[in-house]
Amino acid sequence: MPELTAGTARAVIDAVVARAAEMGVTSNVAVVDSGCHLKAFLRMDGAILGSMDVAIKKARTARLFDMNTEELGPLTAPGGALVGLETTNDGLVTFGGGTPIRDAAGTVIGAVGVSGSSVDDDTLLAGVGTAAAS
Amino acid sequence: MPELTAGTARAVIDAVVARAAEMGVTSNVAVVDSGCHLKAFLRMDGAILGSMDVAIKKARTARLFDMNTEELGPLTAPGGALVGLETTNDGLVTFGGGTPIRDAAGTVIGAVGVSGSSVDDDTLLAGVGTAAAS
Amino acid sequence: MPELTAGTARAVIDAVVARAAEMGVTSNVAVVDSGCHLKAFLRMDGAILGSMDVAIKKARTARLFDMNTEELGPLTAPGGALVGLETTNDGLVTFGGGTPIRDAAGTVIGAVGVSGSSVDDDTLLAGVGTAAAS
Amino acid sequence: MPELTAGTARAVIDAVVARAAEMGVTSNVAVVDSGCHLKAFLRMDGAILGSMDVAIKKARTARLFDMNTEELGPLTAPGGALVGLETTNDGLVTFGGGTPIRDAAGTVIGAVGVSGSSVDDDTLLAGVGTAAAS
Repeated sequence: MPELTAGTARAVIDAVVARAAEMGVTSNVAVVDSGCHLKAFLRMDGAILGSMDVAIKKARTARLFDMNTEELGPLTAPGGALVGLETTNDGLVTFGGGTPIRDAAGTVIGAVGVSGSSVDDDTLLAGVGTAAAS
Repeated sequence: MPELTAGTARAVIDAVVARAAEMGVTSNVAVVDSGCHLKAFLRMDGAILGSMDVAIKKARTARLFDMNTEELGPLTAPGGALVGLETTNDGLVTFGGGTPIRDAAGTVIGAVGVSGSSVDDDTLLAGVGTAAAS
Repeated sequence: MPELTAGTARAVIDAVVARAAEMGVTSNVAVVDSGCHLKAFLRMDGAILGSMDVAIKKARTARLFDMNTEELGPLTAPGGALVGLETTNDGLVTFGGGTPIRDAAGTVIGAVGVSGSSVDDDTLLAGVGTAAAS
Repeated sequence: MPELTAGTARAVIDAVVARAAEMGVTSNVAVVDSGCHLKAFLRMDGAILGSMDVAIKKARTARLFDMNTEELGPLTAPGGALVGLETTNDGLVTFGGGTPIRDAAGTVIGAVGVSGSSVDDDTLLAGVGTAAAS
């Protein structure tokens, strides 16, 4: 299986940071590999401190379940099929901003997590990161 | 950036404790600096033991997100945009009693967290603490 | 059993801080009650950040074993009777700077921990704190 | 106090990674800010997975005590004045590879931690990182 390289991880972070700067927001950006271990991280100047952990948890969540973090939201909401799941794995994030990174064959080789602005911004920026990985 | 001094931290605690005594309630009061590290703490006699951790977490939450803790409540409630956020950063508090401390320029230099009475009381007392910092 | 009051805890911290200032050193000072729970804490401006946790652990160690922390040193040193003990209780400190606080009858009602200067300074200052409690 | 910027953090990582590549070794490189919070991180391809946490703890240790991590080694060795200190602050690293980053006035504004090769290599590389920050 292709590995997520340090070069790819940095390209993801560069792309997210550049777009965030254009949007006038500050982000924490985390990239994890296929084993859910941190590969690269950057906290932009002025980014919310508490979003650092959120960005890392978003990336981990996206890889742990191989789906965008926002897809877990309805499943863990009251009445959902997986209520309480968010307390497992040292805490999951179930709103937008975490997206799996796939290789050309579609295999998940890692994930990116973005946090620091609105959920919509973070979700958009995670997509920017994923696009930069391919 | 101005630092939150030990003198300020003690003034915050003195103000909260004095008001709590007037109100006839007992509080745990925590002050953290801009790096979210504990700067000063006091547990009034008779204050609920389990509120010690809550007071510290309130202060940390207020600084991690640079907002009053109660502002996180609607965001993390069922249907809110950030459901589950409270499981990040080793646990956040999303009801009242934590308030950022700002310098004259409006920069957050720390936060105060109060816990031990009702949420309304704790919220009021956190505001007393913040006022004493300026 | 007499409880360690908030007033006593503050008197301990005031005494340690005053003496530390005279000595030209900066300290983290922690006071725990008989249950090993934090009662009061102050980090002097400029005190080493990593000593915050050390001060709290010194106070906890002194109360957990009802002895000065330095008394545990020989017991946990290679060849000592209690090698490895220092990894229990979430980490003990076995050098000087933690001292039990006793009531008039000699019962341990809490402890003070001081960290931030040399071990000799910290040990002296913990003694200053204990003296202020009586 | 000047802040450690994202630009500086990336320059530190770039310098360490470039030198590590020249030396033919693979490193985990972590940069923390003055509050001991992760500012930037990169794991080079092939770097030992278990060294990730070591790199972060080296950076944290260097900032928590404002000294090179190897300076803590003799102090925490058997017979040293601070035996057991390494169990505080969620675990310290007391061998080389962590170095404080100072501003022009000498104030510590963060730290770099490098792990993945020999201690000598890691120590050299941490120095390379610190030099790149000035």
